[in-house]
Amino acid sequence: MGYDPIDYLPYDFANRRHIGPSPAEMAEMLATVGVSKLDDLIAQTVPENIRQAEPLDFGKALSERELLYHMREVASQNEVLTSLIGMGYHGTVTPPAIQRNIFENPAWYTAYTPYQPEISQGRLEALLNYQTMVSDLTGLEIANASLLDEATACAEAMTMAQRVAKSKATAFFVDENCHPQNISVIKTRAAPLGIEVIVGDVADMDPEAVFGAIFQYPGTYGHLRDFTDDIARLHGARAIAIMSADPMALCLLKEPGAMGADIAVGSTQRFGIPLGYGGPHAAYMATKDDYKRAMPGRIVGISIDSHGNKAYRLSLQTREQHIRREKATSNVCTAQALLAVMAGFYAVFHGPKGLRAIAQRIHRKTVRMAKGLEAAGFKVEPAAYFDTITVDVGLLQRGVLQAAVREGLNLRAVGKTKIGITLDEKSRPATIEAVWRAFGLLKSDDELTPEYRLPDGLIRTSEYLQHDVFHMNRAETEMMRYMRRLADRDLALDRAMIPLGSCTMKLNSAAEMMPVSWREFADIHPYVPNDQVRGYHALIGDLNAKLCTITGYDAISMQPNSGAQGEYAGLLSIAGYHRANGQGHRNICLIPVNAHGTNPASAQMVGWKVVPVKCDDNGSIDLEDFRAKAEQHSKNLAGTMITYPSTHGVFEGTVKDVCAITHEHGGQVYIDGANMNAMVGLSRPGDLGGDVSHLNLHKTFCIPHGGGGPGMGPIGVKAHLIPHLPGDPVSGEGAVSAAPFGSPSLLPISWAYCLMMGGEGLTQATRVAILNANYIATRLEGAFDVLYRGDKARVAHECILDVRPFEKTAGVTVEDIAKRLMDAGFHAPTMSWPVAGTLMVEPTESETKAELDRFCDAMLAIRDEIRAIEAGEMDREINPLKLAPHTMEDLVRDWDRPYSREQGCFPKGAFRVDKYWPPVNRVDNAYGDRHLVCTCPPMEDYAEAAE
Amino acid sequence: MGYDPIDYLPYDFANRRHIGPSPAEMAEMLATVGVSKLDDLIAQTVPENIRQAEPLDFGKALSERELLYHMREVASQNEVLTSLIGMGYHGTVTPPAIQRNIFENPAWYTAYTPYQPEISQGRLEALLNYQTMVSDLTGLEIANASLLDEATACAEAMTMAQRVAKSKATAFFVDENCHPQNISVIKTRAAPLGIEVIVGDVADMDPEAVFGAIFQYPGTYGHLRDFTDDIARLHGARAIAIMSADPMALCLLKEPGAMGADIAVGSTQRFGIPLGYGGPHAAYMATKDDYKRAMPGRIVGISIDSHGNKAYRLSLQTREQHIRREKATSNVCTAQALLAVMAGFYAVFHGPKGLRAIAQRIHRKTVRMAKGLEAAGFKVEPAAYFDTITVDVGLLQRGVLQAAVREGLNLRAVGKTKIGITLDEKSRPATIEAVWRAFGLLKSDDELTPEYRLPDGLIRTSEYLQHDVFHMNRAETEMMRYMRRLADRDLALDRAMIPLGSCTMKLNSAAEMMPVSWREFADIHPYVPNDQVRGYHALIGDLNAKLCTITGYDAISMQPNSGAQGEYAGLLSIAGYHRANGQGHRNICLIPVNAHGTNPASAQMVGWKVVPVKCDDNGSIDLEDFRAKAEQHSKNLAGTMITYPSTHGVFEGTVKDVCAITHEHGGQVYIDGANMNAMVGLSRPGDLGGDVSHLNLHKTFCIPHGGGGPGMGPIGVKAHLIPHLPGDPVSGEGAVSAAPFGSPSLLPISWAYCLMMGGEGLTQATRVAILNANYIATRLEGAFDVLYRGDKARVAHECILDVRPFEKTAGVTVEDIAKRLMDAGFHAPTMSWPVAGTLMVEPTESETKAELDRFCDAMLAIRDEIRAIEAGEMDREINPLKLAPHTMEDLVRDWDRPYSREQGCFPKGAFRVDKYWPPVNRVDNAYGDRHLVCTCPPMEDYAEAAE
Repeated sequence: MGYDPIDYLPYDFANRRHIGPSPAEMAEMLATVGVSKLDDLIAQTVPENIRQAEPLDFGKALSERELLYHMREVASQNEVLTSLIGMGYHGTVTPPAIQRNIFENPAWYTAYTPYQPEISQGRLEALLNYQTMVSDLTGLEIANASLLDEATACAEAMTMAQRVAKSKATAFFVDENCHPQNISVIKTRAAPLGIEVIVGDVADMDPEAVFGAIFQYPGTYGHLRDFTDDIARLHGARAIAIMSADPMALCLLKEPGAMGADIAVGSTQRFGIPLGYGGPHAAYMATKDDYKRAMPGRIVGISIDSHGNKAYRLSLQTREQHIRREKATSNVCTAQALLAVMAGFYAVFHGPKGLRAIAQRIHRKTVRMAKGLEAAGFKVEPAAYFDTITVDVGLLQRGVLQAAVREGLNLRAVGKTKIGITLDEKSRPATIEAVWRAFGLLKSDDELTPEYRLPDGLIRTSEYLQHDVFHMNRAETEMMRYMRRLADRDLALDRAMIPLGSCTMKLNSAAEMMPVSWREFADIHPYVPNDQVRGYHALIGDLNAKLCTITGYDAISMQPNSGAQGEYAGLLSIAGYHRANGQGHRNICLIPVNAHGTNPASAQMVGWKVVPVKCDDNGSIDLEDFRAKAEQHSKNLAGTMITYPSTHGVFEGTVKDVCAITHEHGGQVYIDGANMNAMVGLSRPGDLGGDVSHLNLHKTFCIPHGGGGPGMGPIGVKAHLIPHLPGDPVSGEGAVSAAPFGSPSLLPISWAYCLMMGGEGLTQATRVAILNANYIATRLEGAFDVLYRGDKARVAHECILDVRPFEKTAGVTVEDIAKRLMDAGFHAPTMSWPVAGTLMVEPTESETKAELDRFCDAMLAIRDEIRAIEAGEMDREINPLKLAPHTMEDLVRDWDRPYSREQGCFPKGAFRVDKYWPPVNRVDNAYGDRHLVCTCPPMEDYAEAAE
Repeated sequence: MGYDPIDYLPYDFANRRHIGPSPAEMAEMLATVGVSKLDDLIAQTVPENIRQAEPLDFGKALSERELLYHMREVASQNEVLTSLIGMGYHGTVTPPAIQRNIFENPAWYTAYTPYQPEISQGRLEALLNYQTMVSDLTGLEIANASLLDEATACAEAMTMAQRVAKSKATAFFVDENCHPQNISVIKTRAAPLGIEVIVGDVADMDPEAVFGAIFQYPGTYGHLRDFTDDIARLHGARAIAIMSADPMALCLLKEPGAMGADIAVGSTQRFGIPLGYGGPHAAYMATKDDYKRAMPGRIVGISIDSHGNKAYRLSLQTREQHIRREKATSNVCTAQALLAVMAGFYAVFHGPKGLRAIAQRIHRKTVRMAKGLEAAGFKVEPAAYFDTITVDVGLLQRGVLQAAVREGLNLRAVGKTKIGITLDEKSRPATIEAVWRAFGLLKSDDELTPEYRLPDGLIRTSEYLQHDVFHMNRAETEMMRYMRRLADRDLALDRAMIPLGSCTMKLNSAAEMMPVSWREFADIHPYVPNDQVRGYHALIGDLNAKLCTITGYDAISMQPNSGAQGEYAGLLSIAGYHRANGQGHRNICLIPVNAHGTNPASAQMVGWKVVPVKCDDNGSIDLEDFRAKAEQHSKNLAGTMITYPSTHGVFEGTVKDVCAITHEHGGQVYIDGANMNAMVGLSRPGDLGGDVSHLNLHKTFCIPHGGGGPGMGPIGVKAHLIPHLPGDPVSGEGAVSAAPFGSPSLLPISWAYCLMMGGEGLTQATRVAILNANYIATRLEGAFDVLYRGDKARVAHECILDVRPFEKTAGVTVEDIAKRLMDAGFHAPTMSWPVAGTLMVEPTESETKAELDRFCDAMLAIRDEIRAIEAGEMDREINPLKLAPHTMEDLVRDWDRPYSREQGCFPKGAFRVDKYWPPVNRVDNAYGDRHLVCTCPPMEDYAEAAE
């Protein structure tokens, strides 16, 4: 051996850990694809005129260990105090077993949204538990799982109320006791929809003037009010009553359903979800059965499989229905599945008796704390409360707040003279004593007689969480096994590729994930003083700078909590810009038909009219049609929304023309960043002519999908749009989320990814993503037609396989193929989007050649089965495709099929020893769920409506 | 609802999380067992005369959150410096994916030892990877997996050398360059065996005078020597050559096999295993094929299953063989499976090129550091080295050490004037600069020309890690999936009860486990100054105090690294006591035949002669025989070893008599603590008359089994034995392990358990463990005979099911039943121990009634199947018992059996959707492995030899 040259870097994260194909594999793949080097493939794929001028350079990439060391230093710049600020954010105890077995378990956090129910039964059950919990606690028939945060849930509830209210009023009443960020986001949402927001005292509400109203329960300053009469008044005016309610309080207090509320929303953060400086948390929404079809968000329901066994699925895809009704009022796509799962398990862990006991403890502690202050002569309000009081300290507000910080506490400044204090599950006698010390009182918390200050009429009298799952044995052994059983039923990235077009299911590395659990990131309230979050600000600042360099934009807002919300925030910034320029009338949005379905929904949310633009045979924007539409709407052109590379998987050479034409006619360009994984390091939307883009950090930047959320959708903008970015939810204007930085506890993941990859590694990832997609396209050539290709017959980072012909030739549908892939141990590619009846495959750079081959083998074997049907060798109904997926139950029962058990259960690609078995057979979907990609329908459906 | 009284404690860990049966379940179980309350059952089970006087009282039990808060405070009292002390302990980078997916994953850490190969294929494969790595790196044919630590591995190698050497010499040569703790443990081991230990310069070794020799490579002060000639000289004298070698150095240096070494030992700690203040780490041993049968420890091998498919298993149970040869020289039982798995994965993660690159980086950095010191005029030794140098600083030794601490470094004091420095994988340029500053040099580490100081003749020329697994794609995605696939093949506590008699597989709760990963516990070298480990000392001090209270002893030594080592250390303390009293001739040890098999092995290791004592029909010690033997050997009686409650699962009422008789005859009493789970809070071995006991912290006190280790076997002693406890391995005498506190990073687990349970909770756990065992005994009554019961027909915390009759009536063996239980998704109870042909069931308190019922249902269904054979309704060979376990392969292939697929694969107890499938059919065991409990044979085998 002798000495080696120093050419092997053992800690190289980019090439050794993140990027799937090894150098040797890549050489073989390039040969298959038919190029001699990767540069050549990229040259054939990415048009020269859109390539960025300078390579990405972030200095030397960090190894995993260096990253964790650096992250530790940054984390230590955050100061973890006990926050008693309230405002809907509370200290909570995540049961360690949930933290370890769900929050930190790739089987849960790397899963995709459960659109394919057969391989998602575990998390569907967990989410159904969550829905049941919400429904029970609110006393309303149906709940979703879930919404982004309480503030957006309030806004969603408002627009839902407008959809279902029989009142024709256009104003909406907001209880002045709502949390300020809720009011803020409601206002943002209302403005472009022409809804007048009236904030005031509930007692002064005029029901006839509004289509709906929202009340906070308990109020942000602790007030408790029985809204029964107010709701009756609203109903009398055919208006809708919404309550934003704290689920912990509902364990003791009369529930919204009992008061007659139509909709309840709120945050389940305090059910075991770390504060995370604002998120991610799961917001809930529940409503009456009557309104279930108008409810946004995902709803898990129970169905049966082809053998009649119980099976869970996403049901009531109602968003599609109202989006189709031309006037979309919600673009909700990402949910907070992982957090909802955790909150649901928190309820399972504690059961009704435990939750009630926890709520009582919180309340009793609050009473003790308040009594101590009252005894010293302080004026405490209100007289009855759950966990929140305010204390009038006159001129001493600042002094008490500062004294509290010295005691390790953050209290809330209310008005100019008051202090707000909210206790929580983590509050201990020492906490109460520290509060007292902040008020100058030296006494110990030793009173043991329980005392309650809940209004008699508001004490809950109904039962909740009566379902068996909330009464299961709560031994950790049993809980751990339940979590494991559910995890095992699902297929996530820890077992197989999830080749989802434009969902970019790449590696979520352990080194990226670990800091999320650190208390310096996890245990921080979103409204702490800035000097306690220097680490967060440093991290966010550097990540912003890097994302600006990557995208070619001048500034980033981290506030949007999902891709769709990013679109919405981006369009709001354009609208604000037009208004500032006296061009507020501009309201036409050009969107090519190959755009993401959320695009038109977002456009409509800012009050714009969508004008679709045609695509040519190659799937690219029809430039002539585009030019014509732009000219036609020149005076009113607000903007253009495009996706790049296109959702058809092609780098269009005309993108700069599209941008230029838009600008010529006074419009602004929104470039959807969902496909940034094909661009990083190669091309920058800001250079192409984009004015604003959102980035799906949960796609390109490694935040895991969590089984259907969390996500992050920050937006990048050019300098002229900076004044129109979302403002602070409490002190600013135009907020789109409850917290200033959306879900900041996820940002260490994306930052770690950038630091460990470096500029070169990020660029190589993009290049390999393109290689992987072209490798699949090449290997499947002859068996499946690739629907769209670029000029040089290459695809970008994904490709659309046209399986539509097989319906005629063999009666085989895209769904049959998707389900058959489960037998081979794969999650199906995106089905029927952006083109109905096709499969869109995106392998990402993180998959190895071996895994790509396993997938290709499975697809080719499926093609052979289709050929056998075409040739009449196999029945058109009784065949492995139609009867897929196969389960253990199929294997154990009598087998009367014309193909063997072996063929049915072990198609090519399936692991032998490590075979994944779907726990149910094909699920019977009573509803048409062909268009399940983010549940937004293809753009074609808009053409008719708009023209 | 109204207000509840404060009677429900939502955070009660003991009753809500740790103890399996809920109060409602317990009521049902008591009814089944036939008592009205638990007190009555305990009264019937535990004789009044052995009950402890006072209830355990440790104050208020902590909740999980309070525990973690408290633990965090204690952890923060440890100071984490960078330790460059060396001595076989090194900084290392645990790949985050390994940390998250193995170290912190219950699927790996809750598994049992892979005695049942069909349900252990995953960890067997991982351990085989480890063995392959060790064999390759050392250049020797065969390796085990694994030994406790390097020092005990050295001692094991010495006794192995004595077994295999043809030389008749009785002395053993030890290279003076061995790590001091290795020399220390070798000396301890040698003394009672009559081996003379000669420590000296290798050049002065007289091969004719010794049966073997051990050399350290690299030497503890950094020296590198080619031992080829020395080994040839040894072989010329028919003596055995042992090398204790650093596996990282072996990546660059000529390997022991190439020098002709017969045995290589060492620690794999620096392959990704955290320092943990000394452990747990996996030590390795490798040897020539000729000597494989003499090798202690577990060896994984490859076999085939009943269908001829490859299957892994534990092979070459050679310990049994030499233990049977009357003169046992090893009692090795616990291995370090979890750590060996991690070290093996570390090699898989990096591959040969990566390991070599890491070793080169360490070496080049050491050269740079040394050159810097040389350039400043310091005298650096040796001239050639791998990662360790010493610097002579004369009178300034203390000053430099203190300066280093100020720089955040721990260096090593060598002699009175030298400083030892050892670099490692974590060393950075900043580390080198800090070293320089400690020596007063202000310069930066910016030299980039690589330089090497390895002796030319010692540069490794052979390849290693050529096996495919070390060349697999190292993308984290692939690695994560490989880890998941292996985990899924195994059945661990996260999926099902593991009802192993006397192995006490109870809950290892997440809250207990989490602190083990904290850097304040993980990143501490065992020989740091005491003022850096105040947290550890506080924790150990309090745990010691609690264990003293629990056991009735006066002091605890945490040093023993396993139960068997605890026995050995305990007996050493007795022997030391006798010697100190001028009674050094006492060498007879009375051991009843129902004792743990390790007992006689341990007795022989301290040079005692084992005299077995009979048991009566009820499985209890035959008091008459005991009295007779004690009288017969009165003058030479060293001690008695008993287990309480007995390994037959009975609380013997005569235990105090046994102790008294022993004492009357001048002996000391060793009470084996393996069954402490039946005693905690109810009875104290120290009160019964025990002078010393070991505690299996990995049984009673919640340290997980890790798939076959780590373990901890601290001993408690009465005051008179305190002077004879193991001393410090470096500065003291009588050390049994390499580190002062054994494997201290595990101690937070046991401490957390005690703190969260409180005295009352611990006692309740014992009571429920007894309830659970009696519930099983009652439910299985009529179907299976319980072999032994106490006076009132109760069992203790475990029970022996007699299945021997079925061999005659139906040809069904205990193995058939064990394998059939796998079909129902269970790990078999302990097979054939302590009574051949029986099953010993210990459910522990952590199993719920539902799980106990699932197990009982499965057992009763098995009994029905046996009945069908007995009745001639089923064939004696072709039946579900003989053909168990059933696999997916059985299901998918043609089925020509007289019973259905359904009956074969889904017997009662098996989960339907969540069915666990053994990945292989019954493994073909060429060797008799009926006696696999800790691989030590039943005591009966000794009777003949001793009398």
